[in-house]
Amino acid sequence: MSALPAEEGEPEPSRLDALFAPTSVAVLGASEDPAKWGNWLAVGALRGEHRRAVHLVNRRGGTVLGRRAFVSVAEIGQPVDLAVLAVPAESFEEAANDALDAGARALIGITTGKPAGTALLARIRESDAVLLGPNCMGVFDAATGLELVPEPLPAGPVAFLSQSGNLALELAAFMTDAGIGFSRFVSLGDQAELAAAALLRDLIDHAPTRAIMLYLEDFGDGRALASAAAAARAAGKRVLLLCPESSEAAQRAARSHTAALTSDAAAIDAACEAAGIERVRTLGELAALACAALAWPTPARGRRVGLVSDGGGHAAIASGCAERAGLEVPAVGPDTERRLREVLPQRAAVANPIDLAGDEVGGFARAAETLVASGEVDMLLVTGYLCGYERYGERAAAAELETIGRLAALARHTPMSVHTMHPDTRAARELRGTGVPVYRDVEAAVAALARIARPDVARGAGRVPLLPAPTVAFEDLGYSALRGSLARAGIPFIAAREVYSRGEALEAAADLGFPIVLKALGRLHKSDAGGVAIGLSDAGELEAAFEDMRVRLDPPAFSVERMADLAGGTEMIIGARWDPRFGALVMVGAGGINAEMLRDVAVALAPIDHDHALELLRRLRVAALLAGARGRPQLDVEAAAGALVVLSEVAAEHPEIAELEINPLLVCQGGVIALDARAVAREPLRL
Amino acid sequence: MSALPAEEGEPEPSRLDALFAPTSVAVLGASEDPAKWGNWLAVGALRGEHRRAVHLVNRRGGTVLGRRAFVSVAEIGQPVDLAVLAVPAESFEEAANDALDAGARALIGITTGKPAGTALLARIRESDAVLLGPNCMGVFDAATGLELVPEPLPAGPVAFLSQSGNLALELAAFMTDAGIGFSRFVSLGDQAELAAAALLRDLIDHAPTRAIMLYLEDFGDGRALASAAAAARAAGKRVLLLCPESSEAAQRAARSHTAALTSDAAAIDAACEAAGIERVRTLGELAALACAALAWPTPARGRRVGLVSDGGGHAAIASGCAERAGLEVPAVGPDTERRLREVLPQRAAVANPIDLAGDEVGGFARAAETLVASGEVDMLLVTGYLCGYERYGERAAAAELETIGRLAALARHTPMSVHTMHPDTRAARELRGTGVPVYRDVEAAVAALARIARPDVARGAGRVPLLPAPTVAFEDLGYSALRGSLARAGIPFIAAREVYSRGEALEAAADLGFPIVLKALGRLHKSDAGGVAIGLSDAGELEAAFEDMRVRLDPPAFSVERMADLAGGTEMIIGARWDPRFGALVMVGAGGINAEMLRDVAVALAPIDHDHALELLRRLRVAALLAGARGRPQLDVEAAAGALVVLSEVAAEHPEIAELEINPLLVCQGGVIALDARAVAREPLRL
Repeated sequence: MSALPAEEGEPEPSRLDALFAPTSVAVLGASEDPAKWGNWLAVGALRGEHRRAVHLVNRRGGTVLGRRAFVSVAEIGQPVDLAVLAVPAESFEEAANDALDAGARALIGITTGKPAGTALLARIRESDAVLLGPNCMGVFDAATGLELVPEPLPAGPVAFLSQSGNLALELAAFMTDAGIGFSRFVSLGDQAELAAAALLRDLIDHAPTRAIMLYLEDFGDGRALASAAAAARAAGKRVLLLCPESSEAAQRAARSHTAALTSDAAAIDAACEAAGIERVRTLGELAALACAALAWPTPARGRRVGLVSDGGGHAAIASGCAERAGLEVPAVGPDTERRLREVLPQRAAVANPIDLAGDEVGGFARAAETLVASGEVDMLLVTGYLCGYERYGERAAAAELETIGRLAALARHTPMSVHTMHPDTRAARELRGTGVPVYRDVEAAVAALARIARPDVARGAGRVPLLPAPTVAFEDLGYSALRGSLARAGIPFIAAREVYSRGEALEAAADLGFPIVLKALGRLHKSDAGGVAIGLSDAGELEAAFEDMRVRLDPPAFSVERMADLAGGTEMIIGARWDPRFGALVMVGAGGINAEMLRDVAVALAPIDHDHALELLRRLRVAALLAGARGRPQLDVEAAAGALVVLSEVAAEHPEIAELEINPLLVCQGGVIALDARAVAREPLRL
Repeated sequence: MSALPAEEGEPEPSRLDALFAPTSVAVLGASEDPAKWGNWLAVGALRGEHRRAVHLVNRRGGTVLGRRAFVSVAEIGQPVDLAVLAVPAESFEEAANDALDAGARALIGITTGKPAGTALLARIRESDAVLLGPNCMGVFDAATGLELVPEPLPAGPVAFLSQSGNLALELAAFMTDAGIGFSRFVSLGDQAELAAAALLRDLIDHAPTRAIMLYLEDFGDGRALASAAAAARAAGKRVLLLCPESSEAAQRAARSHTAALTSDAAAIDAACEAAGIERVRTLGELAALACAALAWPTPARGRRVGLVSDGGGHAAIASGCAERAGLEVPAVGPDTERRLREVLPQRAAVANPIDLAGDEVGGFARAAETLVASGEVDMLLVTGYLCGYERYGERAAAAELETIGRLAALARHTPMSVHTMHPDTRAARELRGTGVPVYRDVEAAVAALARIARPDVARGAGRVPLLPAPTVAFEDLGYSALRGSLARAGIPFIAAREVYSRGEALEAAADLGFPIVLKALGRLHKSDAGGVAIGLSDAGELEAAFEDMRVRLDPPAFSVERMADLAGGTEMIIGARWDPRFGALVMVGAGGINAEMLRDVAVALAPIDHDHALELLRRLRVAALLAGARGRPQLDVEAAAGALVVLSEVAAEHPEIAELEINPLLVCQGGVIALDARAVAREPLRL
């Protein structure tokens, strides 16, 4: 993995032009057999024949899909800009070389079951060409009419980069139902040469793309990907990510599927938070949020929802959904209630949620307009029978269309999400056409609004820290050396001395003062092995503990340490980890008994600054302890943040360290003190 | 609210016969106008004309829907068994009385906007008739061909009792898509006479009903409802409940919609757990789980999922969904891997999840059969392109149908849930027809399986405790009296003495021994007002604290108490509450600083027995503290459970108490000791 800044190694736009806007296309392995990739892709390529030359190549020559099939690329006799390689695994290298010989600047390697060879990759790089895949499903670009995919896809304003082809086909169905489509679809395959980060960066200035969806099993250069996503967000394009859970079976599936070098949940979530990437869990959610991303590229003003329904049950269910999703459905003030009473029938509920309770369809518009005018809501949620009134005859249908026009006008300035019992009517299509997201599931309608009120989305484009250049590696990750290194970096440790004999131990204890802690060194988890004795109050106790450990553990050395006063302070854990894709991560959590009960951890991409460290601390449940809840003293949060910053910097500068932990870090009223530390070296990465 | 056992007050079956299987029906307010309830219901009633006499009544006489319209019920001249009252609010009472005069044994009051009068209700009860509603949408019974509803509904094996009509219409659409329908639908309306509990109890022996869905805003006699649900579960009918969240806006909506006397989340969840009711959050989830309830009326053997897919992305996403939902997707053993290798192609992933990776459709059956034969999985999840192979021509379609047959055979003994990209194909309909749940959303397919592996479902029919008859009410809920009452019931309290002067305080302290706690009485929250002084170590400190409180608070009395040794023990809170619908609830949670950080509470319907108390304690995060984690001493969990049982019994026997709390209850190594208590009397219920 390279952790260079994203700008370097990024392809020039011209390189990707051959992939997305080729002047000519050749399909190698084009076939007449409707059960073969070579057939599906040739059919797709020919749909763009009016835009560019399309050549079909088949070893056996003859005719394919009514066109002459060339027996080789060479036989075409014209330059080939983009070559699609739908050939068997054993012919792949040869076909790729033939295409490069013919001047191809871009290659697409369809599903072959074999990785690309290193010689081929080297030649591709030398010739400044690009390779997509291999083992991918192809490319679709709506603006250039490029349809190198096995099934027709709906065109629209959303780009999709995916490590799965079948998921793209399923997503296409969800998107068609939602009335949206793809600006560009790239099946990533093995990412042997072209990786997600470069393709994502290319979308930042891609005018037809207004929102971006990702399905990734392996994040490649994770920092570069996160940086590109942050830049896309800054350019007003929301980035949605679906990836397998970090559970054991999901990881097993991903590794088997794309040989992915997978990252754990904390690493992915930390990267998403830094970049402003919005993570989703299913394809349905991806399509639903893509609609919302188009409608609302920027965060909402706040989280107050005005809710309008024509049924009490719908109002109640939607209110509960909204509040569960973290939105507010505030009761409106008396003035607004009065105004709503003026425009709605007697039976209507007007406190918010609004229940029109039998009013004609125009009540939706009157209620929504009144709510928006009040300034008491930041967004609108409409739920119920709207879009179904057209069933009651022409007059109702006309009134409904007029209502939809008025709602669409409101939606230009106030985010509006609609849930309807009738998602497939003319009225529903009309409403979708205005850009208002219309959902069949109330939960989806609510989730869409909740996203733009979420802090991580609301914060807008993120802060993806660059990894600094590695500094001189620590020579020794042993206990005493590590303590020394971290202390020099600025983390205060409890006074200690490494000793090798009972005599030295007694001498050290006399210098440090009783009570004393004795640790047997040379083991990563000292306390698990009975290698830590605390509260030794005199020389006799120290001698006994020393002898006990010497006999049981025979350690290479001991550490004699001053005993910290735990009363009044609280134990925390601070740590760092090197993720194969995202590099250094820093974490902070509750220590001691709370670590077990609370599972209370905050994680970020390292390095972090002081404000970010404070924010991570504030996020913990034990923030209450630090702040001095229930009459306890306020603890030194600033010092805890300072130690966290230092640890994050050390981790970021030391890629040779896989894991680094200070546990416990005692946070006191005046400062912090580290009581123990451990580190694990990173094994050389097998790639 | 009545908290009588469910058996009492339940209508005789014969009473409901007139509602669901009437010998004749009269629709009062029948209308020719297609925008009126009287039209929709008359149309629905006439669909059952071949089953029973249907009479239309309209004041103006003439003809309605091609039939003679009687000007009154009296004019019909034949007995009327069931009368549907679709008349304006002001005519409702008169129409109801007319119908009773004509011998009606059942009345349905459609949406009128007015509650039923007490005189009418009294007459209905006297005449042993039933009233559904008013303000309801009607009744549907598939077996008897009774369609007294405004829109046609799909017939099937699932009953639905609902306080919302629109939700039923929306649910009908979801159910139609899922290939299921209603055995019976009852729109509950105001529940002025017939309430959900009685209607639910009637479904237990209703043969056409194989699963039950509820939408409730007000639970009426909650214990009777829970008992009926538990009986239905015991009879093999799963009970699914949708109800508004206990959030502020949702409650506002429910109160406005049905004047519901709402219960909070903890009460509803405790009742659901006791009864084995499965709570859902949306209509989509309700329909999805109804399919599953039909397929799997009983719990699964375990939570191990065999996952079969034809795409790596689908396998990864589904695995993550399954593990997030609490299921396991275990790697299969080497023997099973080998057997899978024998029946699947080289490229297939065989560790579970299985990825067929390009095998023909029969691979689904071979993989699933091998997994089931291994005994290493308890359920099957199929995800991906299955049901779409028919697109690849007749041979593929035939192979797919054969595969579906083999899968259906497996599903007879092993729960199987299918997610498909192609939910609307012939193959999908075929598969649904065999009883296998088929979903468009992978999350729904997973959620269905997760439910039957959930402990609350797996435990099967529940344990709904009866409320005991109220005992003699406590005369005094003041601090010292309450301590005395609870101590007599069996909860040990710290030694204390109520005093009224400085002299008495000093005398009490001398008897109890320093250090001492002094509390100012007469306030519910003593510590918030500075009315508690702890650790007073001598007479001087006690005098000073006494004087300070006297001057600041002027309390009517003081309590002088022995100071408990908090070290080594842990503080808990135990409490009880009277819910207007479910009666007494008991709760236990972490105390002290943990109460704030953990929000760690378990709640149950009171009274509970000792085993149930232990189970509630085990559920808490602080169970780790009680069990003696990280070298701490093990605390007396049995004594804590004992105190909880006593408190639950006291609460159940004392409906005059709204809230009762012991906080803290100190749990030590040998026993528990209550350090403070408070109670709030229940205000007379306004109904």
